[in-house]
Amino acid sequence: MGEFDLIRRFFTRPTPNAVLGVGDDCALLRSAPGMQMAISTDMLVAGRHFFTDTDPRALGHKALAVNLSDLAACGARPMAFSLALALPHADEAWLAPFAQGLLALADAHGCELIGGDTTRGPLTICITVFGEVPARGANPTAPTSALLRSGARAGDDIYVSGTLGDAALALRALQGTLELPSDALAAARARLERPEPRVALGQALRGVASACADVSDGLLGDLGHILERSGLGARVDVDRVLPLLAARTHFPGGAAQFDRQLGVATAQQCVLAGGDDYELVFCAAPAQRAAVAQASAHSATPVTHIGTMQAAPGLRLVDALGHAVAPQFASFDHFSAQSEGRA
Amino acid sequence: MGEFDLIRRFFTRPTPNAVLGVGDDCALLRSAPGMQMAISTDMLVAGRHFFTDTDPRALGHKALAVNLSDLAACGARPMAFSLALALPHADEAWLAPFAQGLLALADAHGCELIGGDTTRGPLTICITVFGEVPARGANPTAPTSALLRSGARAGDDIYVSGTLGDAALALRALQGTLELPSDALAAARARLERPEPRVALGQALRGVASACADVSDGLLGDLGHILERSGLGARVDVDRVLPLLAARTHFPGGAAQFDRQLGVATAQQCVLAGGDDYELVFCAAPAQRAAVAQASAHSATPVTHIGTMQAAPGLRLVDALGHAVAPQFASFDHFSAQSEGRA
Repeated sequence: MGEFDLIRRFFTRPTPNAVLGVGDDCALLRSAPGMQMAISTDMLVAGRHFFTDTDPRALGHKALAVNLSDLAACGARPMAFSLALALPHADEAWLAPFAQGLLALADAHGCELIGGDTTRGPLTICITVFGEVPARGANPTAPTSALLRSGARAGDDIYVSGTLGDAALALRALQGTLELPSDALAAARARLERPEPRVALGQALRGVASACADVSDGLLGDLGHILERSGLGARVDVDRVLPLLAARTHFPGGAAQFDRQLGVATAQQCVLAGGDDYELVFCAAPAQRAAVAQASAHSATPVTHIGTMQAAPGLRLVDALGHAVAPQFASFDHFSAQSEGRA
Repeated sequence: MGEFDLIRRFFTRPTPNAVLGVGDDCALLRSAPGMQMAISTDMLVAGRHFFTDTDPRALGHKALAVNLSDLAACGARPMAFSLALALPHADEAWLAPFAQGLLALADAHGCELIGGDTTRGPLTICITVFGEVPARGANPTAPTSALLRSGARAGDDIYVSGTLGDAALALRALQGTLELPSDALAAARARLERPEPRVALGQALRGVASACADVSDGLLGDLGHILERSGLGARVDVDRVLPLLAARTHFPGGAAQFDRQLGVATAQQCVLAGGDDYELVFCAAPAQRAAVAQASAHSATPVTHIGTMQAAPGLRLVDALGHAVAPQFASFDHFSAQSEGRA
């Protein structure tokens, strides 16, 4: 048996929900009547998206998590995924924990591994994930009940789930560009290495949110996608966003001490443009506030109201009094130009 | 605009058949009632699956062709694909022809690019392709009308489409391990660089073939998958297979001259275990011979009857008189152990 047959063994499991799983030229999936299939692909490259020495269990988790986050952003229920894996060599000591981390998250979301490809090459992980959403939802004129980036309206509230910026903060600490107390680093690092995709919240927001995106490239960049696709602008209250950086809120001595020690620019940059958050940023009409609260409670996922969609194009940062806030980091205008293309 | 936004422009096109194409967190596909979705993923790594200096137009073609070949093997109609692309840098002079080659083949098969991911990294192409097949076909007890590897029966005829081994021969010539006359090299190289997936034949074989696989890793290896999944053995007539090596049949001075100059072992190895053919190997009951001929004519794809499925396990190579043929290449037992995992 070749070593790549061995790899396949790690990933061949029962697929009760698929018509046909691993082992043929194609896998076969059925859609229930009235359902649509939501599909997303992400490729993770060693040295770019993760450190080569990342704990393989965490890496397996994260590789699927970033894809499930795309399904969450559409409000889709995870069904299945395919895995293409390039490896420098088939190292069982690496593969076993990688598969464990990957498949534990898959099991938690009922998402079956239905096929893939393994090859020798620079360590690269490409996952394509499949979910389903009802074709028709609350809006009878829409061709889908999926949450899109394009449905927001002026006056809509803007929300973000969970916490923001801790993954980016951990990355800076691991790269040695700033120092964190060890407890704060451990907590932030967990956000970097083991993001929890907001799958339950996404589904709960169907028929409630007017637009949604996942926060993978940083809050402002991903909110920017909603602005662009919805043809709108927005006002974001920085004073509501900054407390979402958990490492700052829970810093020894408090947020003020964090700002003194690491700089408010660091906090702003991590929370507004850090990336790797895998939270959801979404819009909903003010009339939906009770429904948003219910979706949050139902999915046990905190959400924070951070701003308002506006007709005037552009993204305006304000403080609690509504005064314009000048971003404290140089790359404010530039970060979106550095983002990679994802669709 | 970042360079990776530029990349995205090369690949963003109308997607009339999808509910939602490129530009959101997920793409959305609908299945017609009674249809199943066939899904396959292949990852191509520079330096392993193709030379780094391969003509980008040919590479774009091949990257999709190898995936369409998996749909063909299932008898599925191509619908859509997603593309994940890691590139060392965003070079327009490379990207433009790559996109042209990719999208020309996609258009020829009505297969829409519905999403993907672009990132910086060692040149790697990962495509996931989506097709559809009717859930129910000629066999009312089967949960699908897709062609599988598992349906063959003892006594079935074994067929292969088109020609075999020329891609492997071209690879050896390009690697410098043998010399070919320039005309022969050009023809063989076209098979290596621009394989034509047998999509029409695959669909025509639904309800006719009992089992099918695409020949990507070499005839014996891929027929071996059918044997394994069908729990059978087979007899293959080498005298019927060797003429399928077009470069040998059309060699200056004929096949005998090819064998004198390059060795019959080379011919056998290329045609039986060469790989990169992207033909279909399939089985059908003898009662289906007229139907197989009709499928071949209907799809304008030649097919050759090369052997018979047998109850006794194992793969037996025979000559035209039925006498056992000893394979003339050392890796006969070994090649399958070197193949990479694909599912």
